[in-house]
Amino acid sequence: MINQNNPIFKPMKEITPDNLNAAQFIAEKTRVIKAAVGEGVAINALSGGVDSSVVTMLGHKALGKQLRTVFIENGLMREGEAGRVQELFHSLGVEVEVVDARREFFAALRGINDPEEKREAITRTFYREVFGRIVRESKASFLLQGTILTDIDETVAGIKRQHNVFEQLGIDPQEAFGYRILEPLIQLRKEGVRKVGAAVGLPAELFTRIPFPGPALAARVIGEVTPERIETVRQATVIVEKLLKNSGAFQYLAILHLDRVTGMRDGKRDFGLQIEVRCWDSRDARQATPTALPFELLRQLGDEITATVPGVVSVTYNIASKPPSTIEAI
Amino acid sequence: MINQNNPIFKPMKEITPDNLNAAQFIAEKTRVIKAAVGEGVAINALSGGVDSSVVTMLGHKALGKQLRTVFIENGLMREGEAGRVQELFHSLGVEVEVVDARREFFAALRGINDPEEKREAITRTFYREVFGRIVRESKASFLLQGTILTDIDETVAGIKRQHNVFEQLGIDPQEAFGYRILEPLIQLRKEGVRKVGAAVGLPAELFTRIPFPGPALAARVIGEVTPERIETVRQATVIVEKLLKNSGAFQYLAILHLDRVTGMRDGKRDFGLQIEVRCWDSRDARQATPTALPFELLRQLGDEITATVPGVVSVTYNIASKPPSTIEAI
Repeated sequence: MINQNNPIFKPMKEITPDNLNAAQFIAEKTRVIKAAVGEGVAINALSGGVDSSVVTMLGHKALGKQLRTVFIENGLMREGEAGRVQELFHSLGVEVEVVDARREFFAALRGINDPEEKREAITRTFYREVFGRIVRESKASFLLQGTILTDIDETVAGIKRQHNVFEQLGIDPQEAFGYRILEPLIQLRKEGVRKVGAAVGLPAELFTRIPFPGPALAARVIGEVTPERIETVRQATVIVEKLLKNSGAFQYLAILHLDRVTGMRDGKRDFGLQIEVRCWDSRDARQATPTALPFELLRQLGDEITATVPGVVSVTYNIASKPPSTIEAI
Repeated sequence: MINQNNPIFKPMKEITPDNLNAAQFIAEKTRVIKAAVGEGVAINALSGGVDSSVVTMLGHKALGKQLRTVFIENGLMREGEAGRVQELFHSLGVEVEVVDARREFFAALRGINDPEEKREAITRTFYREVFGRIVRESKASFLLQGTILTDIDETVAGIKRQHNVFEQLGIDPQEAFGYRILEPLIQLRKEGVRKVGAAVGLPAELFTRIPFPGPALAARVIGEVTPERIETVRQATVIVEKLLKNSGAFQYLAILHLDRVTGMRDGKRDFGLQIEVRCWDSRDARQATPTALPFELLRQLGDEITATVPGVVSVTYNIASKPPSTIEAI
């Protein structure tokens, strides 16, 4: 019912990169968004990833001040992420509202060790507790989302999926007639989105950033996610991203283990933390092999992480391939 | 009191390798052991390490059939270790009795996660449960031990230490007058012991084996030690020792982590095991750096371990230095 009213959702036919005229696509989607929202207010959540960044730009072009863009600071982001996103969009004329929701996310993650439960806690907190509350309390009745074709390949039907979005937001789908979801990127895959992004004025470095998981640094912590443990893996991530940014690798990451190992500090035994570094060669993430980094660089990673990240006494480099390994550890 | 009767314990003065005449040392110690034991029976525990191997040879030379040599199979040894030791000594004319004590050791280790408690459980089981029982039930009143000078550098006094040996064996030191401990290597350090070992007919490969910890593979398992978990790290150890034996490294080892990581098996998510490989360059174990292995060899380690050790989906290589890391993980 809802989706049959959605002018953007209906034409589900894929637009391949070859058939994509970015300027024309931008003009068309801007027009459709403007027509749908009219004098109303729309809202969107910007994560800093490619999809939500492109949607933010399209929405801004169409709606200007009628679009409210929020960045939810969940405490699980990389060092300086909120500031970086806010600055980038400010330079593009878009004001991003940063919502501090660290307390909610860490409260939801307390005591959870199971990776699947962690993911669920983050999703639930994002949709129901934080973004859901913002949407419900806002005057916005249009929700802009950066869903792309790849996201829905595995879902049975668009209607069911959008129904679920309302449920996730804590909005009764039976009473959701007032809300509408706009998904301007639904006909594109990643490459098309990048093309549109470049045409809409987003800087190249946004598209060349390595993949980063939805649950953010919570996916890089084995065991319970606490502010302290996130801070440890965040500091290790800064070093890994700094030392490997010219590696040409598909992806690189730091993982904080739960297992403690023996170390020595100031001549005393110190049962300390272990950081695992992974760096992958891959074309499409389906298969991956560890990057043959120069050994001097591996030693530098080990030395810099143990020297600067408090509590870390041991660093390892992953040498297994996918499959049977996977790119992320949890 | 006891030690004042010990003809070997008294001359604690170190014999340096330069001052050591191995043939003369062997003749002298053989004579002293023979004189002490007379028509009695002596017993010793052989681990397969250098010190206990040299003591076994000295005792055998002095006492022949009056010496009973036991190898305690604790279930924590490397693949084929008991058979290898028994065969080696058989070829040297020494019959070694293998005592199967796997049940006792695994029972003592059940439910223990703390590294210190693991070590204590192994030591207690070895001395009190297994070797203590063998000594108490045997007719032997002489105990041959491979203690070397380095072992007692940090103990306050030899008397206190030997007192402790009786306590560890479950023998009341007040009633221990019947027992005597003979320590023919007490004036030597490692290099001297190797010289004597070569002179007494032990093969060179015994002295060139990489160091192996007292708690054996239990020191290579983070978390609880079970027969299954020891079997996993034992199989990984076979591969690591095979692929790294020509690396020229000071030491190399495999560690089974307790943390599980995501893997893929037959297209399905498999929350599997992680093996960490460590390979060290070091002069004296006080400082150590990871060996710069060729990357192809690292990949081979990862591939062979994930392909052949059941349940393992991920392999890492340690890239930290000691300090702050240590050679063994626990």
